[in-house]
Amino acid sequence: MSLKIEHLLGLKGVSADDINLILDTAISFKEVLGRKIPKVPTLRGITVVNLFYEPSTRTKLSFELAEKRLSADTINFSKASSSVSKGESLKDTVWNIEAMKVDMIVIRHASSGTPHVLTQYCESTVINAGDGAHEHPTQGLLDMFTMREKYGTLEGLKVVIVGDIKHSRVAKSNIWGLLTMGAEVSVCGPPTLLPVEIEKFGVKVFDDLDEALQGADVVNILRIQKERQQGGLLPSMREYSRYYGVTREKLKLLNDNFTIMHPGPMNRGVEISSEVAEGPYSVILPQVTNGVAVRMAVLYLLSGGKGKVDEE
Amino acid sequence: MSLKIEHLLGLKGVSADDINLILDTAISFKEVLGRKIPKVPTLRGITVVNLFYEPSTRTKLSFELAEKRLSADTINFSKASSSVSKGESLKDTVWNIEAMKVDMIVIRHASSGTPHVLTQYCESTVINAGDGAHEHPTQGLLDMFTMREKYGTLEGLKVVIVGDIKHSRVAKSNIWGLLTMGAEVSVCGPPTLLPVEIEKFGVKVFDDLDEALQGADVVNILRIQKERQQGGLLPSMREYSRYYGVTREKLKLLNDNFTIMHPGPMNRGVEISSEVAEGPYSVILPQVTNGVAVRMAVLYLLSGGKGKVDEE
Amino acid sequence: MSLKIEHLLGLKGVSADDINLILDTAISFKEVLGRKIPKVPTLRGITVVNLFYEPSTRTKLSFELAEKRLSADTINFSKASSSVSKGESLKDTVWNIEAMKVDMIVIRHASSGTPHVLTQYCESTVINAGDGAHEHPTQGLLDMFTMREKYGTLEGLKVVIVGDIKHSRVAKSNIWGLLTMGAEVSVCGPPTLLPVEIEKFGVKVFDDLDEALQGADVVNILRIQKERQQGGLLPSMREYSRYYGVTREKLKLLNDNFTIMHPGPMNRGVEISSEVAEGPYSVILPQVTNGVAVRMAVLYLLSGGKGKVDEE
Repeated sequence: MSLKIEHLLGLKGVSADDINLILDTAISFKEVLGRKIPKVPTLRGITVVNLFYEPSTRTKLSFELAEKRLSADTINFSKASSSVSKGESLKDTVWNIEAMKVDMIVIRHASSGTPHVLTQYCESTVINAGDGAHEHPTQGLLDMFTMREKYGTLEGLKVVIVGDIKHSRVAKSNIWGLLTMGAEVSVCGPPTLLPVEIEKFGVKVFDDLDEALQGADVVNILRIQKERQQGGLLPSMREYSRYYGVTREKLKLLNDNFTIMHPGPMNRGVEISSEVAEGPYSVILPQVTNGVAVRMAVLYLLSGGKGKVDEE
Repeated sequence: MSLKIEHLLGLKGVSADDINLILDTAISFKEVLGRKIPKVPTLRGITVVNLFYEPSTRTKLSFELAEKRLSADTINFSKASSSVSKGESLKDTVWNIEAMKVDMIVIRHASSGTPHVLTQYCESTVINAGDGAHEHPTQGLLDMFTMREKYGTLEGLKVVIVGDIKHSRVAKSNIWGLLTMGAEVSVCGPPTLLPVEIEKFGVKVFDDLDEALQGADVVNILRIQKERQQGGLLPSMREYSRYYGVTREKLKLLNDNFTIMHPGPMNRGVEISSEVAEGPYSVILPQVTNGVAVRMAVLYLLSGGKGKVDEE
Repeated sequence: MSLKIEHLLGLKGVSADDINLILDTAISFKEVLGRKIPKVPTLRGITVVNLFYEPSTRTKLSFELAEKRLSADTINFSKASSSVSKGESLKDTVWNIEAMKVDMIVIRHASSGTPHVLTQYCESTVINAGDGAHEHPTQGLLDMFTMREKYGTLEGLKVVIVGDIKHSRVAKSNIWGLLTMGAEVSVCGPPTLLPVEIEKFGVKVFDDLDEALQGADVVNILRIQKERQQGGLLPSMREYSRYYGVTREKLKLLNDNFTIMHPGPMNRGVEISSEVAEGPYSVILPQVTNGVAVRMAVLYLLSGGKGKVDEE
């Protein structure tokens, strides 16, 4: 079995077969992570470059760990210490890195579409680790993995995504992936933070949190970004919190066996109360654990057997 | 034999048995460092995160090398490239890192007590690599290792610590460790840089350098920090140097076979003259060498046999 | 066969025998880089510190990859995260690093001569990764490797170096190396950017680009640095580009089978047009690929067999 996609640029257009293959593969890698020596030789001889043009804790560490667990060689590249400060274009930077014989590029970039552009002028396999407001496909996959692990299937699952849908790459990747897998997806947020004509994506749209939560199985709560307030899209954090913050009182609107998710980093007391974040129905930390397994699956499947598994 | 402590947060309260076990274990790791391939598989499968919230040359490199020499997997995390810039709390950052299945956390932080707080909400083993003005226990241990290597025992050894005792975590860790091991400890510095009621710790206090040095075996000279001068605690660097700088003339006050120590980085010509720093009685560079061996011992003993030594 | 040099500080004074040995050795490492697992155990047990005091993309990544391909242990040190910010001298920093038992130091520094000074107070093998306007010897070697690979020999090859010769360490290393190997070297640039009495080095000097290119085999185009304009040495980038930019029209002045080189990062449209940079005669990306092989050769040969090749 192999993936139809050659790169992971987003979940839009990725088939249910491909998504299932990634999620199934992640199950066995999650088992590896539980071993005494959580390491396999799967990607020995493969060199992965982590190109992070934006700051990141969990995504960067998660990819680095996934690569180490797979025995890949890794090279880290951050904007601060590079020739980007000498004005070199991304294209030239990447050509140069590629000329050093790397196999895969994991890239995070502030501009939507950068990973896609990369595939047009380089031969390496490209994995999008977040591009602008476009997509964050490994986050979407780990969120789906976490839901499927609990409910057995994504088919018919009622998922509500709450927050700044417009600027959120996490929301986009979740929407595309979940719709492909047969889930019912709703989004909820202030009208200024909802993309125009988002209904056409095939999601239900709410600006009232109580209505949105009614009868939902999963609530995926997005981080609210303070810079949106400066941009005039939000009246104030306090106001946001009052209307869209998920607190314990809201939970009674949900179905039995509901689940609370958040991609982090959290603003406790703003979009989510500490009580909700740490409740027994919260899978916020399991999401992080699953992220390493899902990224291992993506790296492994996209490497196309270039590694040396069978020889050891 | 195993340690009674589960984390290394400071030397205050650590038993002589535990300290001896660490120092004895470091002897065999120092032998490893002298080999052609200075590496053992002791911590294979163990993942260590280095969380440095403050800049550091020697402590960070020393821990990284200790981890590599033990074949641990290491992940480096620095404040600059992380979500701390997005306002995430330390607790959430650490929970996230831990959810990725790490075993040990080495942390340096500007706030006293941070490593202790960490142990309250995480399951990993925590090693303090310096917290505010509180403690720097691996520095204390490497200082004791270096003294014991030369004199055979710490019992009855006369040690003078010179400088800014009040703000120095190195001083604190040395005082607690040395007193436990039966050394006689004095501190010397300008009254503004001595903690109030420090005599109660069980140390002798001097504000005159000549008196302090009289009959001492070891002089541990602390780095004077320029920011103290701005804070009004020091008249000027020149003034400090004149009264508390250790120069060649001072050495005749010491016992035969005396030793000069400094944790670095040095302000040559301020708290220590270049002549003294580079004299035959100086163990400033051996301190650095021993630091790697001592940190290997701490990592090994605190890992509690979770690594895979015997299987290779 | 072994090198006469103990450190690689520059190509001035390095014998043709030493240069040939490095270039010949790089051929076999280039073959290693083409393998499925591009890795050899040659430097197992050797610890290399990368001390980069200036930002760098390709040189730093290239050295790191070369070290990983050779199975060395590597430690990265950058100015930003170090005690340099506490005012520690380079000497003390290096002594400290060395006390941790490292074998080789790769250093990039803004001050000319720093690598040479290092050799005077440390015992490690030192490799210059670029020092001020002095030399960048591994760049010179990879440039020569790339030329020799194409033409079979450097003897009698007509090489023109275009740009800011005065401030360019790349130009210096190329000049010294190529002259030693019997090439005919010319330099071309605005008079303000040519060193005084550069003719005495044994190179031809041109301030007219057309004259310089006439009958040349190789054109090595240097990056023009914008800060020179602020310094009053250049009228404007547009003016520089008009007189010294290498565009397609200029190429007809060259010999058949000519070669275009650039050490990067490029200012496309200034010193080189995009068309020229990406033409079939351009070896700009092969230069990068060869850089890893050449650096592997330098690391291997200078390690003097301290690694463990034969035992595996």
